[in-house]
Amino acid sequence: MLDFNYYVRTDVRFGKGQIKSLKELVAKYNRQSLGQLGEIKEVKTPNVLLVYGGGSIKKNGIYNDALEALSGCKICELNGIEPNPKIEKIREGAKLCKENDIDIVVAIGGGSVIDTSKVVAAGAYYDGDPWDMVLDSNKIGKVLPVIAILTIAATGSECNKNAVVSNMETNEKLGTSSKEFIPRAAICDPTYLFSLPAIQTAAGTADIMSHTFEQYFRKDTGAYLTQSFCESILKTCIKYCPVALQEPDNYEARANLMWASTTALNSLMSCGTGGAWTCHPIEHELSAYYDITHGVGLAIVTPRWMRYILNKDTVLKFAQYGHNVWNIRGELDSIDGLSKGELSIIANEAINRTEMFFKACGIPMTLTEIGIDDSKIDLMAEDTIKYNDLSNAFVPLTKEDISKILRMCL
Amino acid sequence: MLDFNYYVRTDVRFGKGQIKSLKELVAKYNRQSLGQLGEIKEVKTPNVLLVYGGGSIKKNGIYNDALEALSGCKICELNGIEPNPKIEKIREGAKLCKENDIDIVVAIGGGSVIDTSKVVAAGAYYDGDPWDMVLDSNKIGKVLPVIAILTIAATGSECNKNAVVSNMETNEKLGTSSKEFIPRAAICDPTYLFSLPAIQTAAGTADIMSHTFEQYFRKDTGAYLTQSFCESILKTCIKYCPVALQEPDNYEARANLMWASTTALNSLMSCGTGGAWTCHPIEHELSAYYDITHGVGLAIVTPRWMRYILNKDTVLKFAQYGHNVWNIRGELDSIDGLSKGELSIIANEAINRTEMFFKACGIPMTLTEIGIDDSKIDLMAEDTIKYNDLSNAFVPLTKEDISKILRMCL
Repeated sequence: MLDFNYYVRTDVRFGKGQIKSLKELVAKYNRQSLGQLGEIKEVKTPNVLLVYGGGSIKKNGIYNDALEALSGCKICELNGIEPNPKIEKIREGAKLCKENDIDIVVAIGGGSVIDTSKVVAAGAYYDGDPWDMVLDSNKIGKVLPVIAILTIAATGSECNKNAVVSNMETNEKLGTSSKEFIPRAAICDPTYLFSLPAIQTAAGTADIMSHTFEQYFRKDTGAYLTQSFCESILKTCIKYCPVALQEPDNYEARANLMWASTTALNSLMSCGTGGAWTCHPIEHELSAYYDITHGVGLAIVTPRWMRYILNKDTVLKFAQYGHNVWNIRGELDSIDGLSKGELSIIANEAINRTEMFFKACGIPMTLTEIGIDDSKIDLMAEDTIKYNDLSNAFVPLTKEDISKILRMCL
Repeated sequence: MLDFNYYVRTDVRFGKGQIKSLKELVAKYNRQSLGQLGEIKEVKTPNVLLVYGGGSIKKNGIYNDALEALSGCKICELNGIEPNPKIEKIREGAKLCKENDIDIVVAIGGGSVIDTSKVVAAGAYYDGDPWDMVLDSNKIGKVLPVIAILTIAATGSECNKNAVVSNMETNEKLGTSSKEFIPRAAICDPTYLFSLPAIQTAAGTADIMSHTFEQYFRKDTGAYLTQSFCESILKTCIKYCPVALQEPDNYEARANLMWASTTALNSLMSCGTGGAWTCHPIEHELSAYYDITHGVGLAIVTPRWMRYILNKDTVLKFAQYGHNVWNIRGELDSIDGLSKGELSIIANEAINRTEMFFKACGIPMTLTEIGIDDSKIDLMAEDTIKYNDLSNAFVPLTKEDISKILRMCL
């Protein structure tokens, strides 16, 4: 088991109607009450920057609930945040923070909105172009407190230090990170997921599962407990995504998926393991070039990546996945004694089931179906390597490997 | 899934040699740097109260490592903390904090030392007798920051808000709790467990498993993910406790047990479930009257409690435990369709295996073996009910029920 630092300070309020906590959370965690202003001469009602995407939160009532909870505060808005959030919006948000003496950023949305809010919150204290902080996380200094109100189960951004931002001018989609990015509080209300379109439920689940796969398929470091937690999340997604698709307002299904999305990426699933991610870097290039839905890209890439890297060195791990998550050869207490041939059967079956699962959830499972041909595959493969160090991945990949994996996705 | 608040602020540094972080952690989390002193005129080197048990940390070098990391700080000591920590020591510690202007409490030990430190840290700000805060948690106000350095895998106290304190004059062992009790940081070095006596390894594991059982055997609220996490912890204990007993310096085994102890009781295992604990309240009376090792008492009580409450309403849960943790009837993807008779076979087998597991770990499995006869059983049963509300437990128990369970343990 490798050494690790586990630190998640987020005050999570989980359940139906938790928006009622927003008033208390803003009072508790704004930069005045946290002492981030230095010596406070006079406590004033906090100024809030409200960040969100399109109009869906106005239709489903979340927007009004938030405004009500924030009554009395001066509120500025940064809206129209798109999937694969763009640096332009962050520049705009940082400017708003400076001009309006903002004390706290409230993000209502999924990963795009929360990631935007994190970099905006850092931009409030940064004199240069916020893109600098994406290119170099060392440039991130002080950060305004962020509260996340989650509207989709996918990202995990509400409890972690990461943000991913796109720059369409340069076709770059890059991650940056800082402990100061970790939101101070998160409101997770599973009923907010009831109105999600089916494809977002499915793609969100693919995202949760991919986050987990990225941390599960690692070189063995003996972190058994962490790996077993990963299996719990995968089983939860497999159990409840079909239920949520069938019955969009099934609270139990939505709640389990929502909590899975948080725990999958609050660093708990990598305690004691190490190494680089693979499918996310590849998918980030698909999104950077074609602006596709992140979770759809992940669902397409993942099973092909699994098949491509399956070999005699990795077969045990894939067989463990098949045994522990899909209950293949469940009658065995352990698969440790099996031959490579027997392990290979379990491994292949597990990969097939993974692909069939995504397909059954209604996700288009080829790049062709979502309008991507092979014209930019080599370019995307090159950029994946350019912006990410995959030499430390579960199986290190070259540019040529990535091109081949992407061609398997056509 | 019930509503919940998940909030664990502890900065966990996990791994070999993490004591090197102590200097940084004390600088970061003492009450001056946290702003708990109000306006600070002049930053001074923090004053530290060092809390520990007997001499074992002096033998194994932890004490010297800590002193080295704290060089330059004024250090006071509160030592001689015993298992089932006593209120007298807390009174002494609170007095030391006040007289020496203590800025931070550093606890080196297990649950007894950390729990003592929490109440001492609150006592630093409390004018009355600290026992008041055990009897009534509302009396806990400000609390000095606490850093825990773990020397046994059992308690979970390093990342939670609870403390249990004994008052031998009144035969009371009671819990109290406050969010302010949550330690600011924890140093978890699995190599510190290498020198533990076998019985402490076994009893510590029984404690971890009992914490998990208390949260796992709950009325079904649909918190599938949380319950699956519980199963991961139980499987980890079952896998690694025998290894640690066989090879005391097996790092992988110690590390998995240590992380299991933290995650079992940092509130993650009760997210979305509710209800009262059972075996801990019963065991607390055994400890209060006979001062026995907490984990031994739990191992003795647990299987008898399981057998006593096994009935047609609880059989499904026990069978799930047998299926998911012990892989009984592992060939089945789910046991949902089985008859009550079939479920009962799995359930009984699971309970038997639990008892055999504790026995195989070398824990004395009857009260008789540890010198307890039936003379005070009814008194202890009465006190269990007096100090705990078990009406909301997985299966509510009366005084008579508890007497019967304790007699099954003789």
